[in-house]
Amino acid sequence: MGILNYFRSRDKGSASIAKERLQIVVAHERLQRNQPDFIPQLKREILDVIAKYVQVDQEDISVSLDKSENCSILELNVTLPSA
Amino acid sequence: MGILNYFRSRDKGSASIAKERLQIVVAHERLQRNQPDFIPQLKREILDVIAKYVQVDQEDISVSLDKSENCSILELNVTLPSA
Repeated sequence: MGILNYFRSRDKGSASIAKERLQIVVAHERLQRNQPDFIPQLKREILDVIAKYVQVDQEDISVSLDKSENCSILELNVTLPSA
Repeated sequence: MGILNYFRSRDKGSASIAKERLQIVVAHERLQRNQPDFIPQLKREILDVIAKYVQVDQEDISVSLDKSENCSILELNVTLPSA
């Protein structure tokens, strides 16, 4: 449960920043390098899903895609408008 | 970039397990407790999106939702069929 602890520790410190945030991390571990990587398409679809629930400007979304040998990690950080 | 390091360190150790995996973590930090939480709906939509790209049985997906005071964390772990 290391990842949950990571988010929890961030949560505690964030009160002073006072921003509502949504963070999505997708990790795809492949067995072989030549297997298809659907992460880029998945990224677009997840952004579409988010847009259904919250109104966000494109500039409020930061996206990073990190590829190592057998693992793709997509990280989406969204700053949500405070209601 | 702590979260990327978390995934990277998992990646190194996973060669012996030899399973293809997809992990999705969604963290929603709210400013107020009484704000609507759309994570449960988001969960269903993300599962629908995954189903478009990979054929997985329901039993190959484990879902956990962890709620603290101002933060909801959704964790989806999918074991993908090896092609």
